[in-house]
Amino acid sequence: MNANSERYVVGVDFGTLSGRAVVVRVDDGAELGGAVHEYAHRVIEDELPGGGARLGPDWALQSPGDWIDVLRTAVPEALAASGVDPSRVVGIGTDFTACTVLPATADGTPLCEITPERPHAWPKLWKHHAAQPHADRINVLAAERGEPWLPRYGGRISSEWQFAKALQVLDEDPETYGRAERWIEAADWIVWRLTGVESRNVCTAGYKGIHQDGAYPSEDFLAALNPDFAGFTGKLGQKLAPLGGLAGRLTARAAGWTGLPEGTAVAVGNVDAHVTAAAADAVRPGQMVAIMGTSTCHIMPSDRLAEVPGMCGVVRDGIVPGLWGYEAGQSAVGDIFAWFVENFLPAAYAERAAERGLGPHEYLTSLAAEQEVGQHGLVALDWQGGNRSVLVDHDLSGVVVGQTLATRPEDVYRALIEATAFGARIIVETFEAAGVPVEEFVVAGGLLRNSFLMRTYADVLRRPLSAIGSDQGPALGSAIHAAVAAGEYADITTAAAAMGKRRAGAYVPDPERADAYDRLYAEYRRLHDHFADGGLLHRLRAIRNEAGA
Amino acid sequence: MNANSERYVVGVDFGTLSGRAVVVRVDDGAELGGAVHEYAHRVIEDELPGGGARLGPDWALQSPGDWIDVLRTAVPEALAASGVDPSRVVGIGTDFTACTVLPATADGTPLCEITPERPHAWPKLWKHHAAQPHADRINVLAAERGEPWLPRYGGRISSEWQFAKALQVLDEDPETYGRAERWIEAADWIVWRLTGVESRNVCTAGYKGIHQDGAYPSEDFLAALNPDFAGFTGKLGQKLAPLGGLAGRLTARAAGWTGLPEGTAVAVGNVDAHVTAAAADAVRPGQMVAIMGTSTCHIMPSDRLAEVPGMCGVVRDGIVPGLWGYEAGQSAVGDIFAWFVENFLPAAYAERAAERGLGPHEYLTSLAAEQEVGQHGLVALDWQGGNRSVLVDHDLSGVVVGQTLATRPEDVYRALIEATAFGARIIVETFEAAGVPVEEFVVAGGLLRNSFLMRTYADVLRRPLSAIGSDQGPALGSAIHAAVAAGEYADITTAAAAMGKRRAGAYVPDPERADAYDRLYAEYRRLHDHFADGGLLHRLRAIRNEAGA
Repeated sequence: MNANSERYVVGVDFGTLSGRAVVVRVDDGAELGGAVHEYAHRVIEDELPGGGARLGPDWALQSPGDWIDVLRTAVPEALAASGVDPSRVVGIGTDFTACTVLPATADGTPLCEITPERPHAWPKLWKHHAAQPHADRINVLAAERGEPWLPRYGGRISSEWQFAKALQVLDEDPETYGRAERWIEAADWIVWRLTGVESRNVCTAGYKGIHQDGAYPSEDFLAALNPDFAGFTGKLGQKLAPLGGLAGRLTARAAGWTGLPEGTAVAVGNVDAHVTAAAADAVRPGQMVAIMGTSTCHIMPSDRLAEVPGMCGVVRDGIVPGLWGYEAGQSAVGDIFAWFVENFLPAAYAERAAERGLGPHEYLTSLAAEQEVGQHGLVALDWQGGNRSVLVDHDLSGVVVGQTLATRPEDVYRALIEATAFGARIIVETFEAAGVPVEEFVVAGGLLRNSFLMRTYADVLRRPLSAIGSDQGPALGSAIHAAVAAGEYADITTAAAAMGKRRAGAYVPDPERADAYDRLYAEYRRLHDHFADGGLLHRLRAIRNEAGA
Repeated sequence: MNANSERYVVGVDFGTLSGRAVVVRVDDGAELGGAVHEYAHRVIEDELPGGGARLGPDWALQSPGDWIDVLRTAVPEALAASGVDPSRVVGIGTDFTACTVLPATADGTPLCEITPERPHAWPKLWKHHAAQPHADRINVLAAERGEPWLPRYGGRISSEWQFAKALQVLDEDPETYGRAERWIEAADWIVWRLTGVESRNVCTAGYKGIHQDGAYPSEDFLAALNPDFAGFTGKLGQKLAPLGGLAGRLTARAAGWTGLPEGTAVAVGNVDAHVTAAAADAVRPGQMVAIMGTSTCHIMPSDRLAEVPGMCGVVRDGIVPGLWGYEAGQSAVGDIFAWFVENFLPAAYAERAAERGLGPHEYLTSLAAEQEVGQHGLVALDWQGGNRSVLVDHDLSGVVVGQTLATRPEDVYRALIEATAFGARIIVETFEAAGVPVEEFVVAGGLLRNSFLMRTYADVLRRPLSAIGSDQGPALGSAIHAAVAAGEYADITTAAAAMGKRRAGAYVPDPERADAYDRLYAEYRRLHDHFADGGLLHRLRAIRNEAGA
């Protein structure tokens, strides 16, 4: 290959607290340079910027200016770090947290730049959970009316999604609702800022916007929620753009921000979890990518449509064009381990970890790894953050069973790791029982660092685990989409094969441990089914809420 | 009262790690001086003294010499501390842990003084649990044969008791078994050493020796366990001595040890928990004394005989002559809180406690006390040490339900305190449902120090709690028994009224909190009943035991 002919793409990943850019070689996916920019406003949870209005509980907003700052700082810094001549960059792709959504004018101006004193004018971050009552209303009505799209979302839509959040705006601030000519995912808004042209990607429209079989929920349905909600879909996109498609070309203004050539190809917007499938070269039917971090998101293309109980959603073309894209999730995974260490790690353990130069997680893991399967006598339910799949119930909570006076911190820590692995097994089994085979389990995300945890998942799932070969999966995935949008590859699958990185069979199950885990999993399953009806856990939650009120 | 006519008694309490003597005024129970002697050998768990044989798991022995040392040191020191002229001491009474039992010759010489190299020649402490298989055999056979005494023990005898421990000696060291002319509770052995005369108290014979309706288990039954066990009861006492009775008079030798006059009245032996009822002036029907420490023991006289499910035992005259004496228990109470603090208190909490000059329990309690009932959203089962009453199942284990990522250490600590209170309520309700009313709940023991815990028990039990007015309940109780044995009072009830100390209604329930606890208790009860069959918990225990093997 002639170095002068080398071509590059830029991927930009917009996370919860920061944005990251990476410069990637088109031929082989080599990551040549990257940079991170922390959002100045991070997550806006207590009051609006500038000492504005106080926000209620469960609110979470962001500032669009922070996102533009990523384009202005992280992209040029990544280019500089890579040593790549910007003129050799042929495309830029982006991914975003979702559903992160904002009201805007017809030209894409965020309403928070016009009426910054109104909380509902600001972008609502994915973890804004204050629209739960509105989601509840939508779910009750949809179930009553037997809306055909409901089973595509495991029987329940989330308070995080576009319709719930918009209905909250309408109910609580109808003026802002009326002023919003567009209601748009940040994933699409950032592409609009790059290209000057509005586009709507098929992925967020499907997973977060209830777009199924070519349509949104009916006017009739929306009017039944609130007469003024009837025309809501007019604020959304009608023509959807395919993933990997060309959204437009970089404007002069955006070229000025990024240091890239005006006219550079810009890929259609996408979601952080979904682009990771391409980064792991796992976009074929049956390749389930688990992005394991504070929570776990499961993404899998399939050639079959089925109603899988408790999945987050299934969307045609939602991961790659031509296939059904499934999404499932575990509400809390790394969050559970962090919670345990923060609240229940005794001083003596913290000291011994420090003496050995280990972090608390490494130390607990080293102790846990010495045990035989089942030796701690415990089984736990991993519902400390609720249960996303397969129960879709955020009012569930955790359970730990089997403590004796001999139970030590590493015992509980190990039981919690195992509980999340059992939770993953239930998801896999639920897909397969619904007729959607899981051919390969591919892990991405921060928890890949813990090899004991990976071994445990392999044992519990009784199958080899593949591992992504990059620690910036989303940004690499966006870069791959950029290469497709720029016409460097025919499609995402081909681009992912060339540029994605996957170590097949990185962790292999041990048959003896797997057999031992089968016994523990049977107990987990019984406990899961016993508490799944929510009776006790919902009553405890109600008691808690009343006592705290 | 003329000081010259004042009369005194000495109470000696033989505990697990030390013995304590107290000098008490006969008229009013005033405690004038006390002293403690720590056993040189404490609990013998690993190997015999002098580098002898290694002991197996769950063994726990003691050395009789340590007990004699209490008489030789703590009694004279207590006398000196009290300033009382020994010639004014009219009686001495003792109490012991039980079932602590030893093999001896016909003259009372402990076999461990003859064959110290044999583990089975040594006294077995109450918490020697290595006779569990032997207890299991006894229970299975008794149930099969429908032995009439079995329901008097809640349907199951304990591995801690005389017959299980003796059967272990016979099975594992038949020579020592054969050499044992007497098989005697330490409670009676110490009285033998004081008086030179063997006596057997009705209390340990009933609660630990399966003596019911005037008889031990039949020869026939014992022979079915092991033909050589048929004559076992010949090693026990046949004529039982009543509590508060005169066992004999101090020998010259024992007078030399103690500094008391030769001929001083010596009370019949007794058990630490049972004498505490007298110390709390709670020996009337329906007065339930809860001795709350590492575990809780419930002692209650009643005029009614009933088969209360899951009680430890009911014995005629077992607390005071003329009444049925009931015993129930919670395997672990303070032990659970200690376990939590030792294993799950984070460094930041330990530091903040230290900054405030508080112990970890005080600090956690102060945080827990600020909460509303139910605010933590948790419910726990207090089975970390198994369940004595009412399930009589030591293979059960703990459960904690309802954790979220917001759950803090004080939440779990409070839930564990509440769980033990709920466990106490189940015991009380079980007695009442069986037709044995609980008129008053009287607390003794170390946990009285924690007033939040006491308030919680009052709220959960929905009744005022009385509190013992002494922090050396057992020793005071033994002194009261000594006064009766010396003829200073007509009976234990009269003596307890004069010398015992009880603050009636020391803790009063708050109606609002009590109502709130009713809701949580209903959840505890459901959880209790769900896990009571032991299915899941027994399977986890089996998995643990196999994994650890």
